[in-house]
Amino acid sequence: MIPPFLSISRRTRSTPFSRRVTEAGVKAYTVYNHMLLPTVFNSLEDDYFHLRESAQIWDVACERQVEVRGPDAARLLQLLTPRDLSNMQIGQCYYTPMVDETGGMINDPVTLKLADDRYWISIADSDLLLWVKGLSAGTRMDVAVTEPDVSPLAVQGPKAEDVVAAVFGERARSIKFFRFEPMLLDGQEYIVARSGYSKQGGFEIYLQDSAYGESLWDTIVEAGKPYGIRAGGPNLIERVEGGLLSYGNDMTRLNTPHECGLGKFCQTVDAIGCIGRDALIRVIMEGPQRMIRGLKIDAQGLPFTVEPWSVTVGDAHAGQVTSSAWSPRLETTVAIAMIENEYWEPGTAVVVNTPSGPREAEVVTLPL
Amino acid sequence: MIPPFLSISRRTRSTPFSRRVTEAGVKAYTVYNHMLLPTVFNSLEDDYFHLRESAQIWDVACERQVEVRGPDAARLLQLLTPRDLSNMQIGQCYYTPMVDETGGMINDPVTLKLADDRYWISIADSDLLLWVKGLSAGTRMDVAVTEPDVSPLAVQGPKAEDVVAAVFGERARSIKFFRFEPMLLDGQEYIVARSGYSKQGGFEIYLQDSAYGESLWDTIVEAGKPYGIRAGGPNLIERVEGGLLSYGNDMTRLNTPHECGLGKFCQTVDAIGCIGRDALIRVIMEGPQRMIRGLKIDAQGLPFTVEPWSVTVGDAHAGQVTSSAWSPRLETTVAIAMIENEYWEPGTAVVVNTPSGPREAEVVTLPL
Repeated sequence: MIPPFLSISRRTRSTPFSRRVTEAGVKAYTVYNHMLLPTVFNSLEDDYFHLRESAQIWDVACERQVEVRGPDAARLLQLLTPRDLSNMQIGQCYYTPMVDETGGMINDPVTLKLADDRYWISIADSDLLLWVKGLSAGTRMDVAVTEPDVSPLAVQGPKAEDVVAAVFGERARSIKFFRFEPMLLDGQEYIVARSGYSKQGGFEIYLQDSAYGESLWDTIVEAGKPYGIRAGGPNLIERVEGGLLSYGNDMTRLNTPHECGLGKFCQTVDAIGCIGRDALIRVIMEGPQRMIRGLKIDAQGLPFTVEPWSVTVGDAHAGQVTSSAWSPRLETTVAIAMIENEYWEPGTAVVVNTPSGPREAEVVTLPL
Repeated sequence: MIPPFLSISRRTRSTPFSRRVTEAGVKAYTVYNHMLLPTVFNSLEDDYFHLRESAQIWDVACERQVEVRGPDAARLLQLLTPRDLSNMQIGQCYYTPMVDETGGMINDPVTLKLADDRYWISIADSDLLLWVKGLSAGTRMDVAVTEPDVSPLAVQGPKAEDVVAAVFGERARSIKFFRFEPMLLDGQEYIVARSGYSKQGGFEIYLQDSAYGESLWDTIVEAGKPYGIRAGGPNLIERVEGGLLSYGNDMTRLNTPHECGLGKFCQTVDAIGCIGRDALIRVIMEGPQRMIRGLKIDAQGLPFTVEPWSVTVGDAHAGQVTSSAWSPRLETTVAIAMIENEYWEPGTAVVVNTPSGPREAEVVTLPL
């Protein structure tokens, strides 16, 4: 069977970097926030090894920004997340689970505080813009909520710091994890954050004018040549090994942040007046019934996890696998799974019911 | 250049019909509401001619439903759209433009009134669920807003009525355009509506339990054999000829319903307390500055319209093309464009600046 092609239209938005991505030989995309996200250049495995050894440039413009600006910005932000934002400083990035009124995850964005009255919410794959606009309209808050012309470009991998320092100057090396600084390049301001969707380290550079996308790309590629830079993208193998969750894959509106292992980002108490607070207080009282875990599956050549694979122990339901990949480094299939509380201890033996048949697996702690 | 493949994961949701779609030989998908939407089976042109002559079965499960249920349902619905819903009857489908506070389109769904306190909003490609949930949470309306397990399956084409009558009984023939009836099949209730995203006539059948998806598909395909039924999907050529707009392609949050030619669906007056009312009253006072029009472009073999193509007259900006396709029937390239008011009269000669160079074109009225 030939894997299906993607029909591209204006609706599956191109990015300020799309032309360069095509020239770099992209083989496959996914669609993320109605926008093209490159997934494969050479091959998943080749891209994986390169990411762990060198530096890659990623078009992650699909991490769209929801800008919240105005006198009520901080108040609205705190309404959006059970994470306590009261000590958040300008220049910080916060991983901020966002939930609906029942405590179900609707996005797991990174929030950047640009000013006391200005935030960017750098979103995962759901139209959080509509949620924030709906809430602010309904509560008549004094804020403007927009999707600005901002497109992140990531540089990831062990050589990423060298590349970014070569582009933006040595000062970039001093940016701490989940901090950002505005930096200038050819007269344009970029927000340079030490962050990104890999465990190999790196930066996300927020382009603020699409017209400069290709020149930013070219400058980074030129500066990265001595470091072996190549085009890449979030890599399935690397992210599963690293336990990096993907909204829509590993969690949905049905899951609470606590189930997703994000309880440490929730300071849900009466004092934090966020949407979903009451439901989350109930979750904390009762404890989560299931939790994200890693699995090592004793199998090779499994198909992609297009729909969840059930996990069983004997006749009992023990959970479901939501993402998986063959790890050529660990020589096992690694997976992210939601595991019921009776079975979530690392070392527990379970069976994964894959499309290729049942396979033995072991609960593990990620990252591997 | 090989067109790119689509990376499929749980996040690009499969549908209750996906297995049958794969078996039917789907060649390409797009992603729509985080879900797979088949776009090509044989070829765009072959699928086009077949749709105009026979009957096709379409997996349009990606038309997700936002269910609004509860004492405040009607009040919330009227808040969502400038269309006057006061005379809407149970059993009716209404095309309902929905706008944000600035009057910008955020979706153009079809709303079904199931009961006085229960509606389905059958959505185009944006997470309207989050908008409706945000608004209802912010205004503390007494409603439940959910995405139920409902998946539309369309039967489209001149033989569609024969097929649907063979499945659901002759009574289906009496369903009027944009009306629906609950109908039984093997003990399951389906909402059968005369509607669909083509100009060839047909029905949308709302499956209410994913478990019955494949049996519904099989029953329709079996009943449709005498009529030459085949798997298909919304067809680019047919919809551009027919002037069927696509949210995200032909209109975005930047456009008002009036620009999109949807003014006839807006009864925006002081009495209708919808979101965006004040901005739309201003639009009505000033008149739209641009409007959706058709174009015939004197060219063959143009690429897909991945990004808008500018339209010019002399040195002046005259608009942009947002969708286009070669029509093998009309032997011209047909297009949907947003045209500025100086140039929108049918017959106006314009130039379309395509990736293959400038091409002469003529403003026309759709459908063609």
